[in-house]
Amino acid sequence: MTYRIAVLAGDGIGTEVMPEGVRALEATARRFNIDIELTHFDFACCDYYLEHGKMLPDDWHQTLIEFDAIYYGAIGWPEKVPDHISLWGSLLKFRREFDQYVNLRPCRLLPGIKSPLANRVPGDIDFYVVRENTEGEYSSVGGTMFEGTEREVVIQETVMTRHGVDRVLKYAFELAQQRPRQKLTSATKSNGIAITMPWWDKRVAEMSEQYPEVSVDKFHIDILTANFVMHPDWFDVVVASNLFGDILSDLGPACTGTIGVAPSANINPEGKFPSLFEPVHGSAPDIAGKGIANPIGQIWSGAMMLEHLGHKDAGDAILAAIEAVLEEADSNVVTPDVGGTGTTASLGQAISERI
Amino acid sequence: MTYRIAVLAGDGIGTEVMPEGVRALEATARRFNIDIELTHFDFACCDYYLEHGKMLPDDWHQTLIEFDAIYYGAIGWPEKVPDHISLWGSLLKFRREFDQYVNLRPCRLLPGIKSPLANRVPGDIDFYVVRENTEGEYSSVGGTMFEGTEREVVIQETVMTRHGVDRVLKYAFELAQQRPRQKLTSATKSNGIAITMPWWDKRVAEMSEQYPEVSVDKFHIDILTANFVMHPDWFDVVVASNLFGDILSDLGPACTGTIGVAPSANINPEGKFPSLFEPVHGSAPDIAGKGIANPIGQIWSGAMMLEHLGHKDAGDAILAAIEAVLEEADSNVVTPDVGGTGTTASLGQAISERI
Ligand SMILES: CC(C)[C@H](C(=O)O)[C@@H](O)C(=O)O
Ligand SMILES: CC(C)[C@H](C(=O)O)[C@@H](O)C(=O)O
Repeated sequence: MTYRIAVLAGDGIGTEVMPEGVRALEATARRFNIDIELTHFDFACCDYYLEHGKMLPDDWHQTLIEFDAIYYGAIGWPEKVPDHISLWGSLLKFRREFDQYVNLRPCRLLPGIKSPLANRVPGDIDFYVVRENTEGEYSSVGGTMFEGTEREVVIQETVMTRHGVDRVLKYAFELAQQRPRQKLTSATKSNGIAITMPWWDKRVAEMSEQYPEVSVDKFHIDILTANFVMHPDWFDVVVASNLFGDILSDLGPACTGTIGVAPSANINPEGKFPSLFEPVHGSAPDIAGKGIANPIGQIWSGAMMLEHLGHKDAGDAILAAIEAVLEEADSNVVTPDVGGTGTTASLGQAISERI
Repeated sequence: MTYRIAVLAGDGIGTEVMPEGVRALEATARRFNIDIELTHFDFACCDYYLEHGKMLPDDWHQTLIEFDAIYYGAIGWPEKVPDHISLWGSLLKFRREFDQYVNLRPCRLLPGIKSPLANRVPGDIDFYVVRENTEGEYSSVGGTMFEGTEREVVIQETVMTRHGVDRVLKYAFELAQQRPRQKLTSATKSNGIAITMPWWDKRVAEMSEQYPEVSVDKFHIDILTANFVMHPDWFDVVVASNLFGDILSDLGPACTGTIGVAPSANINPEGKFPSLFEPVHGSAPDIAGKGIANPIGQIWSGAMMLEHLGHKDAGDAILAAIEAVLEEADSNVVTPDVGGTGTTASLGQAISERI
């Protein structure tokens, strides 16, 4: 069996980290005798959008649905295309139209990386954020009245459905069930956001009855962000709405030293559509072109992709290689965000060689 | 002239820290010859709500509008009254109906307090969060359809107005203008929340033209929370919507060691309605009754109140006393959240004596 993988490097550092992601993927495929076939697409701001006036061709759905997975870099180049156009025309479109309703984001303090939190060592921070990925605060419903006048009113609706919320809660509970600590934390804000969030709390409470072995707590998002900093060791699986999950999955990795290493999986658990694997970081125009972006987020996302395709051993091998290279902490090899003077290529190559 | 101050201690640790807040206020009034008259109200979950079935009497507006300021503890006792009922029946009602549209929250690493961030010392973290406090994500518009069924849909609208956003931006720009660094950071999420937030960005851009000396940057809320942890020294004045400001003003204080010390001012800048001064922390049922809550958030809020009433020197004296006591760091005096074995009373008394 051959796995067909669509590769979309995107913009900025997406185009720099993707070659390292591909190199690691190919090395792993060779070692584990996995047959993969990569097809590259140039759908991005630079320069597909500028040529075609859109982020994707009209037949993107038919084209990409044929693939077993999408390996994605990062999209966005605000100087050329406003972010809300480029993201809603690509990443957010895939998430919604390919019904990738789980955004799974591990957050782990790796060896050799210094946490900005005092006295935290590997083992202290090791949790997953499970983010609802298709609805909620990321809606397309709303608009403007009295536009351009003193009376201007702008409305955007948060839309949550039982269908949408229950299925991601189920995923999160099942993940928690499999973990040694069997602990689930729900991110809420039911004291302030008093229509949707009390209802979210009720769905969590109802779902928890089916998982008696999972211990559940909840925090309002404000104090939850505080607790990520003060007590990151409290967390095991954190389930959150689209926006809250977005926030927590940048803050969590920041607490582990750099968001450059954080991976994510946008999953359609039923396998009806291809799932999408991308680093948590964006296209980072500020450091693009310098060759210093950390490729680990991209490479680790490839590991999640292999695990999703049924090759957990191969995914584990990638993660082991990442950890081994970081543990050596050769400052000529690792990138500046983790204290080295190396490049995207030097770090990527070291990991691929280790694989 | 006599300042009339309404005192609402509230629930839980609100009732424990308020006596220390009052003690410090009275000590300061004596020293600076300020004439204050305190009137206590028992509007809270415990036990006003339980007796009356509501958080406030019907004539609360006429009663409280007569005061020069409201000195507020914390509301909430979820076992007795759901949070969204108690908060929307009290704190959030005051903010909206007394048009306290600026929520000003200083975030400062104080001497003698250890930051959970590695190697941060006083001076490294010193900024203000200016939070919009009446509209935005904290709306009361929305509802549920197909309630209790598989098809259930829950909608809540974020409502932003030019009136509401421009006035808080103006306040933030003017604050930034007065600070030595003259720097303003806007919290956005215009890539994902693609109706309201791109419009927020436009309002910021337009307002910034009137303040050419203020340097402005913006971050999406996800990476902004990451930067609070990685680079807290970057920030001077941070302006944010109601929800984003809520998050940032818990996360910021967490980075300074404890949210127990963080104060806030809910301000109606025009003075048409009384402003309200409260600690950032809540009623904390988990530690209530133990007498170990940190009273500094309450006391510092009193300092902000005196400054608001025109007595900056008196407010400064309170802050100086807080800093002096913390600097001594007598572990018998300071509360457990900052590493001591003292009590609410021992810490409060030490500060009042210093004043
Ligand atoms: C208690 C709650 C409703 C409130 C808020 O969300 O505004 C609190 O968190 C705050 O920050 O003052
Ligand atoms: C780029 C942006 C639209 C996206 C999001 O908000 O979902 C990103 O921050 C992420 O977390 O994947």
